[in-house]
Amino acid sequence: MKITCSQSELSKGVKTVLNAVPGRTTMAILECILIDATGDQIKLTANDMEIGIESIIEGTIEEKGLMAIDARFFGQIINKCPDNDVTIYCDDKYHTFITCDTMNLNITGMPGEDYPKIPVIPRNEPVIISQFTLKELIRQTTFTISEANANNKMMTGELMEINGDNLKMVALDKYRISIRNIKLKESYPNKKVVVPGKALNEIAKILNGGTEDMVEVFFTDNHIIFEFDNTTIVSRLIEGEFINIEHMISNDYETKVKVNKKRLYDKIDRLTPMLFKDAEYKPFIMDIKENVIDLRMNTTVGAMKEQVDITKDGKDLVIGFNSKLFIDALKVIDEEEVNLYMVNHRSPCFIKDEEGSFIYVILPVNIQE
Amino acid sequence: MKITCSQSELSKGVKTVLNAVPGRTTMAILECILIDATGDQIKLTANDMEIGIESIIEGTIEEKGLMAIDARFFGQIINKCPDNDVTIYCDDKYHTFITCDTMNLNITGMPGEDYPKIPVIPRNEPVIISQFTLKELIRQTTFTISEANANNKMMTGELMEINGDNLKMVALDKYRISIRNIKLKESYPNKKVVVPGKALNEIAKILNGGTEDMVEVFFTDNHIIFEFDNTTIVSRLIEGEFINIEHMISNDYETKVKVNKKRLYDKIDRLTPMLFKDAEYKPFIMDIKENVIDLRMNTTVGAMKEQVDITKDGKDLVIGFNSKLFIDALKVIDEEEVNLYMVNHRSPCFIKDEEGSFIYVILPVNIQE
Repeated sequence: MKITCSQSELSKGVKTVLNAVPGRTTMAILECILIDATGDQIKLTANDMEIGIESIIEGTIEEKGLMAIDARFFGQIINKCPDNDVTIYCDDKYHTFITCDTMNLNITGMPGEDYPKIPVIPRNEPVIISQFTLKELIRQTTFTISEANANNKMMTGELMEINGDNLKMVALDKYRISIRNIKLKESYPNKKVVVPGKALNEIAKILNGGTEDMVEVFFTDNHIIFEFDNTTIVSRLIEGEFINIEHMISNDYETKVKVNKKRLYDKIDRLTPMLFKDAEYKPFIMDIKENVIDLRMNTTVGAMKEQVDITKDGKDLVIGFNSKLFIDALKVIDEEEVNLYMVNHRSPCFIKDEEGSFIYVILPVNIQE
Repeated sequence: MKITCSQSELSKGVKTVLNAVPGRTTMAILECILIDATGDQIKLTANDMEIGIESIIEGTIEEKGLMAIDARFFGQIINKCPDNDVTIYCDDKYHTFITCDTMNLNITGMPGEDYPKIPVIPRNEPVIISQFTLKELIRQTTFTISEANANNKMMTGELMEINGDNLKMVALDKYRISIRNIKLKESYPNKKVVVPGKALNEIAKILNGGTEDMVEVFFTDNHIIFEFDNTTIVSRLIEGEFINIEHMISNDYETKVKVNKKRLYDKIDRLTPMLFKDAEYKPFIMDIKENVIDLRMNTTVGAMKEQVDITKDGKDLVIGFNSKLFIDALKVIDEEEVNLYMVNHRSPCFIKDEEGSFIYVILPVNIQE
């Protein structure tokens, strides 16, 4: 194999696929990037068996071929190369020569044939969404996904559901649910899949976030495929039915609060040093009155009070929450004002807008006051 | 004690003194900041017994007094306070009330009397140097100081020597020496002290680096004091004679190389991925010829070559170095071109300018080629 590409093009491609190189693995070949120049294009691939990323880069193929090379080492070398053409030559014993300007590197590659292929999947009509919107949807929901080693496998993924021209994404853990709904530009056949949270987070890193740059999303029985900017990301789906959340969502409320989002965020955030060092975990308390919420937090560190102006509808209420859960949700909401809907101190709080484009459900913490 | 200051003023002061709060300590009081409002000014102090920092902040004293408060907790709270006046009140049982806008915090402070005082030291005429120059001198030498737990205590410090209007700073470890000489605006009585590296690094963090902002440096028998911007930093000196380096410095050479600094830096840096993962440590080799240096590095990862154009005076030479030592020195040199002076492959390389304003001495690594 012999190829030549510009350093910038190679560097961009390597950076993209590095997102799918596993940190630790017993299979040395998975720590490699596959360089595939067997066809008409130069294709870089990484694959951790859950998520695979392919990036097509510009360059010339002087001799067709295929090789694998340690991904992180290759990434470091390419990063440090000058802004010039890089030539990679690999002979049939995998002796590899990388040259760029006066640089001359001689290492041993690995057989590209040993690299696990990304499955070739028949594709139907794609769903089209802008990079900006997809990146926002991921940012506004994945923080709720349970950690990869959670007991309930379903909670490590996120529901993507298409219903006509509506795309709904749902993520949840034991204490909260995040829901986002958006309107697509056109209608599509209904779909309902569960995408691993890890895949979504990797995709968000690669998306440039442009409002005019489109992503094509293909759904198959076992995989989801994202195509954009010469990049293809294939992720396995999580098999099974997603947790039914419909019975947890309700429009009833006894107390409705309208509040400036940034002000509420800052004031709850200001309470968090009360959990300093080994302070016993304590919730913060919202004491909701006519035009104001009194915020209180008492820990072994001391006692803190804050106050935030609100507009209230309905009953007064005293309710406790984990400060992190509340902050996480407020952090991703872009609206200037938010509405909180509550029934009583044992029922979840709904943070949502009128249109239901976002719904954050947070379970309260039991308090004795 | 009762004081009121603006959040910004308090936050700046706390940030400054936090640099002297030790990370872990068995004396809880050392993890505190002392707030001293017994006089006419509000003074914040932190002291890890090696280095003490005092910062005078603007504000009003409504009731004189003294208290100590957990430094990191206080730092977090003050950071999160809104941009408004902060009032701190501490009663005689150290119940402490901090209020800012709608915030109301109630914690327990500690007796300020228990806080270890920074020694009050009689001062002579100060040496005056700009913040910019001091910050640069520190950046350009402290990277050579041995780690705090080094066997030779003297190597954990840096020589500051005043000779008329010349200030010389010297730092060294087992493999290298860094020397900087600058001309002061006037002449001072001769001084020769060894300042702990840790103190210099903390000072560099606090200096704003302005060319017009001056630092007054006071030398006493056991301490060095830096005064600037309402801030006083007192550090103990390291007792004893600094390592005599005069016999290690020589102007003889057999090979002199003039080279573009950035180009040499980039090319040596490009060799460093060859030490990837568990690759056995290997030096890089400089093969110095008429108009060019061939750079080579062979490790278990592979073999790499680079080349850099030079102007040479004297003999050809093949010599090996630890890449990190060379990169560290080149990184802090601001000149576009540097001169390397060498005698043979067993003698140190001197990187210096014509005027001797900087001298970096690097020991070679033994190579068999």
